[in-house]
Amino acid sequence: MENIASYITTHKDRFIQELVELLKIPSISADPAFAQDVLNTAEAVKSALDAAGCEVTEICETPGYPIVYGEKIIDPKLPTVLVYGHYDVQPPDPVDLWNSPPFEPVIKATDLHPEGAIFARGACDDKGQMYMHVKALEFMVKNNELPCNVKFMIEGEEEVGSESLGWFVEHNREKLANDVILISDTGMIAKDIPSITTGLRGLSYVEVEVVGPNRDLHSGLYGGAVANPINIMTKLIASLHDENNHITVPGFYDKVIELSVEERAEMAKAPFNLENYKKALDIEDVYGEKGYSTNERNSIRPTLDVNGIWGGYTGEGAKTVIASKAYAKISMRLVPDQDWKEITQLFKAHFESIAPKGTRVTVKPHHGGFPYVTPMDSLGYAAASKAYEATFGKTPIPQRSGGSIPIVSLFEKELKSKTILMGFGLDSDAIHSPNEHFGLWNYLKGIETIPYFYRYFTELSNSES
Amino acid sequence: MENIASYITTHKDRFIQELVELLKIPSISADPAFAQDVLNTAEAVKSALDAAGCEVTEICETPGYPIVYGEKIIDPKLPTVLVYGHYDVQPPDPVDLWNSPPFEPVIKATDLHPEGAIFARGACDDKGQMYMHVKALEFMVKNNELPCNVKFMIEGEEEVGSESLGWFVEHNREKLANDVILISDTGMIAKDIPSITTGLRGLSYVEVEVVGPNRDLHSGLYGGAVANPINIMTKLIASLHDENNHITVPGFYDKVIELSVEERAEMAKAPFNLENYKKALDIEDVYGEKGYSTNERNSIRPTLDVNGIWGGYTGEGAKTVIASKAYAKISMRLVPDQDWKEITQLFKAHFESIAPKGTRVTVKPHHGGFPYVTPMDSLGYAAASKAYEATFGKTPIPQRSGGSIPIVSLFEKELKSKTILMGFGLDSDAIHSPNEHFGLWNYLKGIETIPYFYRYFTELSNSES
Repeated sequence: MENIASYITTHKDRFIQELVELLKIPSISADPAFAQDVLNTAEAVKSALDAAGCEVTEICETPGYPIVYGEKIIDPKLPTVLVYGHYDVQPPDPVDLWNSPPFEPVIKATDLHPEGAIFARGACDDKGQMYMHVKALEFMVKNNELPCNVKFMIEGEEEVGSESLGWFVEHNREKLANDVILISDTGMIAKDIPSITTGLRGLSYVEVEVVGPNRDLHSGLYGGAVANPINIMTKLIASLHDENNHITVPGFYDKVIELSVEERAEMAKAPFNLENYKKALDIEDVYGEKGYSTNERNSIRPTLDVNGIWGGYTGEGAKTVIASKAYAKISMRLVPDQDWKEITQLFKAHFESIAPKGTRVTVKPHHGGFPYVTPMDSLGYAAASKAYEATFGKTPIPQRSGGSIPIVSLFEKELKSKTILMGFGLDSDAIHSPNEHFGLWNYLKGIETIPYFYRYFTELSNSES
Repeated sequence: MENIASYITTHKDRFIQELVELLKIPSISADPAFAQDVLNTAEAVKSALDAAGCEVTEICETPGYPIVYGEKIIDPKLPTVLVYGHYDVQPPDPVDLWNSPPFEPVIKATDLHPEGAIFARGACDDKGQMYMHVKALEFMVKNNELPCNVKFMIEGEEEVGSESLGWFVEHNREKLANDVILISDTGMIAKDIPSITTGLRGLSYVEVEVVGPNRDLHSGLYGGAVANPINIMTKLIASLHDENNHITVPGFYDKVIELSVEERAEMAKAPFNLENYKKALDIEDVYGEKGYSTNERNSIRPTLDVNGIWGGYTGEGAKTVIASKAYAKISMRLVPDQDWKEITQLFKAHFESIAPKGTRVTVKPHHGGFPYVTPMDSLGYAAASKAYEATFGKTPIPQRSGGSIPIVSLFEKELKSKTILMGFGLDSDAIHSPNEHFGLWNYLKGIETIPYFYRYFTELSNSES
């Protein structure tokens, strides 16, 4: 497999340019205005899979955006790796905070990426990380290094809840049958500290509405006499955390699995520098649930964050109005064994129950997903660990992530296979933020490491059977 | 003066059409995009004053939007009435809730206005009410019924704090010298219950900003570990009221004058039907400070309302983001003897002091004004009362308003004269809201009543001197 390094050296300019082209298409799944761009991206991914050596590729229609499927079956008796990724991206808002247009990729060096990084929406999440797998396949096919079967399932609704993917997986169990699912949609601790994500948080995303009077009112004539929906919204949301930053929704913590003292001590060994963390975010202090460290707060503990809020007059200058309605988008990150559907119901029942008279409050569930923890004693984990050792020269650290890939627990349920999360991005890559980027070094290192996973997974599977 | 009724009958179609034309110009002072329209409106008002019979009219430059000045001095020994009004309007947002475009006036009948009402931004506040004075002057001049001197001062920044007007008044005390100031920028209780506004609330308007991390963050990777500016904003705003809906800003109530039991009992005699009030707003119950009635809450008690809030992702669908910043516009209505500048400072000091570590909070004062109470034993009040008796056949009720005309207390300080607030609008006219309108009956009744004020004010002044 030593030829992978030289193959990358020969082709890296093309690998980068192909990704740049893919990043130019604004595949924003959340905004219907970009529907055609999302569809065009699916076509581009299909073409890339064809070119990389897939023998079958398809644009699979779904109730929502299509799923791009590809496969190369070299021998049904060999193990099968199913690669999952997504070709849709987050909205780029707020656009004015980008240093370059989000869909006009530019390559610039940064402190952490002196070799350069591609700045564009989706560079890391997930077009760049998904495309590593396409290029790794190209290498394996072109150099006769593919040791097993491979299937690709690349969706276009990950950033909006993967609703169609659930439907697709349920209806295509045989087609998607596999021995391990491989995903690069997470990060690693640092360029010199490879890590494998062993846990993901679940998610419940809701939109809430507070309605007061039947029209906007003059705040002089009515101020003080009627419930102001914005004031009430702040009151309701503020009440969702107590003075220790515990979440107050009744029943919220009932199914949360507390880690043992030993497990927490093990976690605390992961490299983490609080001063650097605060400095990187330009904050005076961290903030969170009492009794837990920063790394615990954003991985093994559930949270509740407002992702957006709006109401009343938000334009230039002043308007003395009492708005008729106020809105907020709220998401909760969940941990094992919280059930997102149950949490959504608990939230809805609680939030609607605390509305004062004179207002009507409704909670509209948006989407969600179950938390996931992957076992470290699986073949897949062992193969990934050996792959990192081969290209990084060191054993990767297992890491619980605070993010969510809601579909992972569904894969386990429907396809009966474990998911391995090999992420090559960094926390500082600003995914979901302005100026998202992906280091060229990380991109190419991913392409280099992935073929080793195939080799070791096949070897370990063969030796076990 | 009986000819006023027939003059209105003869000319009412023109009176209405002239107002319609004035309402077509979107003089939104809060939004710089409409600057030229604001200036065009000033020109239109000047032309209207010329046509009505003013001998001198001017567009007076100021640091902001100009003030339209007009006068007709018939005898320096006679009393002088100074009419104040404003030609700027509130922003029409949310535009999608209007049944007809806000700057394309339409006349429609409503339950309260079977004779028809003009629907347009500014119809009542204040173009319509200001224009009543122009047409009343026209009648008096054309029919030789003007008994005293008159000056007009019509400004273009009332909806954004009247900053230039303060400057203008301070620099033009002699030019503006008068015996009484007459304003129609308030309402009356009902079409069959005329009222004179005897008090106005003051105002302090601020904009607050909560800054957390230096960029928008992925709510999975950072959720629970850093202060979320929107969550913090809700917490800070919610803390501004206690469980009895008292405002918690230290010192806020120190200068509030509590009314006596007798005064409150007198207020409680004003006609008010709580069920109709709730029904008109489609709310299950009213909401406000414990220990006070609805009419007290919106007139003699200070309040704190959020007029706008925004932060994070507010577009279609879902975005799992922790916003770097959150914003709110907050206004406080003040009562005698609260000092708006002092209250603004108290608010700023308090709000910034309660920001948790990990956030930076700033309060930017916007504008403000002092509360005002007019004495009922003045010549002006007596003249207004007799004018209403002449045209409504009943004595008007004195009424404290919850609204603010911040400049009124400045008039008293700089010009040493009392202000009489003769409002002809109704609370249901939806000023500052979508579908603002002004009843044709009210408009014409205002034109009919105003000349009587001039007559009685002149008579009472002459008999006193």
